[in-house]
Amino acid sequence: MSVTGGGSLLLAWRLKDKRVLIVGGGDVASGRIEAVLVADALVTIISPALGLHPQTRHFIENSDRVTYHDRVFQGHDDLDGVDMVLTAIDDVEWSRQICALCRELKIPVNVADIPPSCDFYFGSQIRRGPLQIMISTNGNGPKLANIIKKRIEGTLPENVEEAIEKIGALRAKLRERAPGVGGLLGKKRMRWMVSVCNTWSIDELARLGNDSMEKLLVEGWDKGRVLKPHETGVAVPWWWNIPPQVTPGIAGFTCGVAVTVAIFILRRR
Amino acid sequence: MSVTGGGSLLLAWRLKDKRVLIVGGGDVASGRIEAVLVADALVTIISPALGLHPQTRHFIENSDRVTYHDRVFQGHDDLDGVDMVLTAIDDVEWSRQICALCRELKIPVNVADIPPSCDFYFGSQIRRGPLQIMISTNGNGPKLANIIKKRIEGTLPENVEEAIEKIGALRAKLRERAPGVGGLLGKKRMRWMVSVCNTWSIDELARLGNDSMEKLLVEGWDKGRVLKPHETGVAVPWWWNIPPQVTPGIAGFTCGVAVTVAIFILRRR
Repeated sequence: MSVTGGGSLLLAWRLKDKRVLIVGGGDVASGRIEAVLVADALVTIISPALGLHPQTRHFIENSDRVTYHDRVFQGHDDLDGVDMVLTAIDDVEWSRQICALCRELKIPVNVADIPPSCDFYFGSQIRRGPLQIMISTNGNGPKLANIIKKRIEGTLPENVEEAIEKIGALRAKLRERAPGVGGLLGKKRMRWMVSVCNTWSIDELARLGNDSMEKLLVEGWDKGRVLKPHETGVAVPWWWNIPPQVTPGIAGFTCGVAVTVAIFILRRR
Repeated sequence: MSVTGGGSLLLAWRLKDKRVLIVGGGDVASGRIEAVLVADALVTIISPALGLHPQTRHFIENSDRVTYHDRVFQGHDDLDGVDMVLTAIDDVEWSRQICALCRELKIPVNVADIPPSCDFYFGSQIRRGPLQIMISTNGNGPKLANIIKKRIEGTLPENVEEAIEKIGALRAKLRERAPGVGGLLGKKRMRWMVSVCNTWSIDELARLGNDSMEKLLVEGWDKGRVLKPHETGVAVPWWWNIPPQVTPGIAGFTCGVAVTVAIFILRRR
């Protein structure tokens, strides 16, 4: 197997309580601010009030995680204690200088619209509760990334976020019940969780409650097996588990039958 | 609009010709090696030969971007000039120490299986040429991420990578024709590219050739308009542009008609 290069390393960067500096306050900056607030960052915005996008203003006024300075970026001192820098200003030369300063201080930096000054790029993103999806075309076509994003959004199961939340809760309960990092136990825990995900549909996982989780652990994990949904009292009608790709086929078939029968009946009269 | 936290910042990290140190050579490490090779990194692997996964061995033997040291990680000196560190070893204490060293040197680090020692996480990934998609459940359910990944893979248009490559090429040609960074021209270029993506289907974009790109630029961009596919000689039959969600419905309908007709004919005999 050979590896085809030309890609990037897609990552979920942890920003909880990290300090992110945003230079600029326009349209692009407001998108950046939202993205880092999603990740629980502490945000500092440096931008003259004149150029603020209404959305940026909204974040400044309503989020206790945002600190705002009504001025331009002034240099070295503004980078003190900063964990990440995102710039979105029109001044290309100034942008490049901020990037150089960041590189010197080893602070990860993204300069909007100047790829060589970026340690990382953003992609089109989907957020559904704990689920995050990023679509990157590696700079080839941001708009196409957006079109693909919409297609994917349309195919995600409706209650996928509940399913993920429930599986996260089950995993936490399992860790409490069988604690420890790594080793054989870690592998056993992982295998069991994988079996649960393979046995239960997303609809069924989404309906897991505290009682059924307890049952799964006491009568399942403790006895080295994975209960089926109906054994824990969680059951959805079988037709809920029909894969969504099949549904239009069935609907089409039914219509086809109905239309043909109707034509036959009408012709007989 | 308020922002719900608890997420991460999804990024496409640039690694072209950056030095990535992988500590460990097992199953997990081999996946990491592949991921960073995709991003054109220069990889150093430190791991005793005894624990090497066949896949890791394959990369060591076949990639000129991989340097291998048959020993354990020895400390500070191993981090000299390194841009990113990924560890996947069983020794939890040693892992934490490597992490501490990296934090001191401000080198981004991921320690497999020890979330607090990670500056970033990996997610389930899809790669289709220049298209990369990452699915992250923010640590709630890696297996579910995988299930969602497979669903998404099944819904991606067949020639999506060709479409992205072609749109990338068109964009590069447009930049040559109307060069310059940012400003009004940059915005005009962006708007025109967006119109092309909105007017052309993915199938049509995938069939763009050099001639049709030239035509799009000369008779389109230069005259401030976006040509339709048939105007450039690229045309696909109209039924190629039927949205894929509709196809099973049509197929089902046809089957329904056929089956009903067959039943009527058989009953008449």
